[in-house]
Amino acid sequence: MADALEQLKERMAEVTDLGKVARLLSWDQQTMMPPAGTAHRADQLATLLRLMHERFTDPAVGSFLEELRPREESLEPDSDDAALIRLVRREYEKAVNVPASLRAEMARAAAEARPVWVKAKAESDFASFLPSLERIVELKLQYVDCVADGADERYDVLLDDYEPQTKTAEVRTLFEELKPPLVALIAELRERDVDASFLRGDFPPDRQRDLAHEVTELFGHRPGSWRIDPTEHPFASGPGRDDVRITTNYHPDSLESLFSTMHEYGHGLYSHQQPKHLERLPTGGPCSLGIHESQSRLWENLVGRSRPFWQLFYPRLQATYPEQLGEVDLERFLAGIHAVTPSLIRIQADEVTYGMHVMLRFELEQDMVEGRIELRDLPQRWNEKMWDYLGVEVPDDGHGVLQDVHWSGGSIGYFSTYLVGTVASVQIWQAATRDLPDLEEKVGRGEFEPLRDWLGEHIHSLGRKFSPQETLRRATGSTIAAQPYLDYLRASYA
Amino acid sequence: MADALEQLKERMAEVTDLGKVARLLSWDQQTMMPPAGTAHRADQLATLLRLMHERFTDPAVGSFLEELRPREESLEPDSDDAALIRLVRREYEKAVNVPASLRAEMARAAAEARPVWVKAKAESDFASFLPSLERIVELKLQYVDCVADGADERYDVLLDDYEPQTKTAEVRTLFEELKPPLVALIAELRERDVDASFLRGDFPPDRQRDLAHEVTELFGHRPGSWRIDPTEHPFASGPGRDDVRITTNYHPDSLESLFSTMHEYGHGLYSHQQPKHLERLPTGGPCSLGIHESQSRLWENLVGRSRPFWQLFYPRLQATYPEQLGEVDLERFLAGIHAVTPSLIRIQADEVTYGMHVMLRFELEQDMVEGRIELRDLPQRWNEKMWDYLGVEVPDDGHGVLQDVHWSGGSIGYFSTYLVGTVASVQIWQAATRDLPDLEEKVGRGEFEPLRDWLGEHIHSLGRKFSPQETLRRATGSTIAAQPYLDYLRASYA
Repeated sequence: MADALEQLKERMAEVTDLGKVARLLSWDQQTMMPPAGTAHRADQLATLLRLMHERFTDPAVGSFLEELRPREESLEPDSDDAALIRLVRREYEKAVNVPASLRAEMARAAAEARPVWVKAKAESDFASFLPSLERIVELKLQYVDCVADGADERYDVLLDDYEPQTKTAEVRTLFEELKPPLVALIAELRERDVDASFLRGDFPPDRQRDLAHEVTELFGHRPGSWRIDPTEHPFASGPGRDDVRITTNYHPDSLESLFSTMHEYGHGLYSHQQPKHLERLPTGGPCSLGIHESQSRLWENLVGRSRPFWQLFYPRLQATYPEQLGEVDLERFLAGIHAVTPSLIRIQADEVTYGMHVMLRFELEQDMVEGRIELRDLPQRWNEKMWDYLGVEVPDDGHGVLQDVHWSGGSIGYFSTYLVGTVASVQIWQAATRDLPDLEEKVGRGEFEPLRDWLGEHIHSLGRKFSPQETLRRATGSTIAAQPYLDYLRASYA
Repeated sequence: MADALEQLKERMAEVTDLGKVARLLSWDQQTMMPPAGTAHRADQLATLLRLMHERFTDPAVGSFLEELRPREESLEPDSDDAALIRLVRREYEKAVNVPASLRAEMARAAAEARPVWVKAKAESDFASFLPSLERIVELKLQYVDCVADGADERYDVLLDDYEPQTKTAEVRTLFEELKPPLVALIAELRERDVDASFLRGDFPPDRQRDLAHEVTELFGHRPGSWRIDPTEHPFASGPGRDDVRITTNYHPDSLESLFSTMHEYGHGLYSHQQPKHLERLPTGGPCSLGIHESQSRLWENLVGRSRPFWQLFYPRLQATYPEQLGEVDLERFLAGIHAVTPSLIRIQADEVTYGMHVMLRFELEQDMVEGRIELRDLPQRWNEKMWDYLGVEVPDDGHGVLQDVHWSGGSIGYFSTYLVGTVASVQIWQAATRDLPDLEEKVGRGEFEPLRDWLGEHIHSLGRKFSPQETLRRATGSTIAAQPYLDYLRASYA
């Protein structure tokens, strides 16, 4: 009879495998599945997720954890086993408090809301989406009531699902520190007359595809363990560290996919450098959405918008699109990819204005959850904030409050991780630069191995053993901080 | 509290979903997965299959079945519910008799044997594969001992895994009836001087790809619910009736993929026309490997080698490959695709000699299982039979006893279903012709809907409710019979 720790590991390996299988199904759905397969896929994913939940919340898991209490105390807190017991205990206690019926209702509400949102967005008709959103928020509040133990405010519970062990107040403090300087910087930069027109035009997708492969190979896409496939909304996924699936969308009229591929490369590299000895345990997974995003933003922005990188790669890009870029020199190109233009849509926002889109959502979500706003007033509040933060007038709800898929899928508490990760990416880059003093020169020579290895050692290898803030502290010497990010933006843009 | 029947259905839906997910993983592995993903995939598939087995053999399922005994007797035997209880009871009783440890050992032995076989085949070194094969046969015999209840001979148990409720003696009788006329026909036809040289040459794969899509669309590939992807060893699979995945291998020097695509189309159509109301129950699945093969062979041979089909499609093929086929008229082409040439490799065999390859394996497998042959003597016995049945001299074991993957994967009892299905395909075609008297004219006009509908109504819609022989009897009025097949071969070839 294996001991409780072995049994716990065995059960977690099973649950981890099922989670990876679910990821593959989801990837397949978004890249390969014939459209008519949707109905089967919903059943299959529901079955997988239900089994995962049942196996994880099985009373046997509770017994293993009870039995392990004395042992846990004798383990070195940083050890793999202590981290595993700690993590599983935390997740288990959260999971067993949610009745299966509520979980099922939340899943059903999200499944039903999705097509309603698609139609409402297309028709800019918020009123038709409102009942779905009300139902989703109502269920989310029931969910909060189940697991609110230890939370300072309701939103803490929701944030914790995406950024574990992170308090709303911490994020609020960070964002409050970012907001005034960002608003000021945007006001200053929007007046500049930057020509970015050459980033729009005729960019044949087959050549974009070649570029996507070329840039990920240059970064260090290991042959035989990655794929890149086209999809509608780009993401990185994959069922294992040696089976990474990047996706992108080759818009024929822009270079967006090149930057989006660098972004997804960062996510993919994080998966690829997961600690191998923990790969079938939850401690081997990614730390949080924020830390995940720090990896993608680092490759997209700190590497992918940097002068050294483009000194190396711009000739290649020009050679790929001579008609479009032959006459545009490196300086004009660099200025173009640093243009700041407040705009309506978050996912198309530039590096500087992006944060304001996130803050707006973070604030509105808290208001929704704490009951400080009627949901029917959301469009008006959205539009007011867009004007206050970005000076942008929202023409209709399709380009405003209805633009993101998240709420329709029941994801409330997610958005802030985008900005938290972006801010962290600068701290991580600076720490890497301290340890690798000639990092910029290396980037300019296309030598990415030292950076990959540094990220592997200081971030990726920690898996999910520690909280996001502890992970960041171990990697950089500091928890999340606004100043490096603000300094970086000012240095890059002003 | 749902009643036992509802609970049984719910559990079977779960098990069926997991099976479909496993199929998707396997498809992905053979078409999309980066090579380095193998190790993860093995873990994930093992976890899925173990869970499937655990959920299916759960004592709760036994209780549902016990509780349903009285109800079962009151149900109309042809009803969906009666068929479900019957099928699950049969499979359950078989499954619970096999200890988990034996299942695990069988899976491990197969996993370990696979790479040994790959190397042995490449090096034509049977001796190096012999210990693996001995282990696999030893475990298969233990498996037989667990579930032999009701079997007339050991091989019955193994055959039953692929062709349920079919006795070895029935297949033996069929094959004994086929063998002398086939051997005679082959001897007669091999002397003919048929020019098939134009079927080899330069056939650019991109145009083969277009042809594969064209022919399956012509047959009735419904847009939005199928895919065709390249792979090493073609197969049809997919996780649902509206999510069918055909695969093929575009060899640049032959037209093999065109016929193989028609073959896989037949398998795919069977899945696609599964009874919708049973799609998450085992009764909705395919009846047996033999019935599955009857569907693929029907489209590949009865349609795909027929004069009416090529009268329609040959101009299209010629236009695709004018350099290769421009000078070859329809008569020469039809003669070429009906050339009979005894050869070494089963999967490349023509329609007439194919059966002898199957019989040889069926006979050797029975000898192995009944202990009538020492495994080390297999190569010699193989080579003798190849000479007796086909007049072919085997140069080495890579082209002989080591050619097929099946034994290395633990599949013993599988081969005969290829020929059983081929024989059944002719009976099914004749039955369809009786009901649709102008079927050949319709084929010549590219009207396949009546045939698809006929197959749907008479075969596909029965799912797995009845035994293969009962399914065939309901569709054609007769159980399996040698004569129609022999008549067909004689008419098409002699």
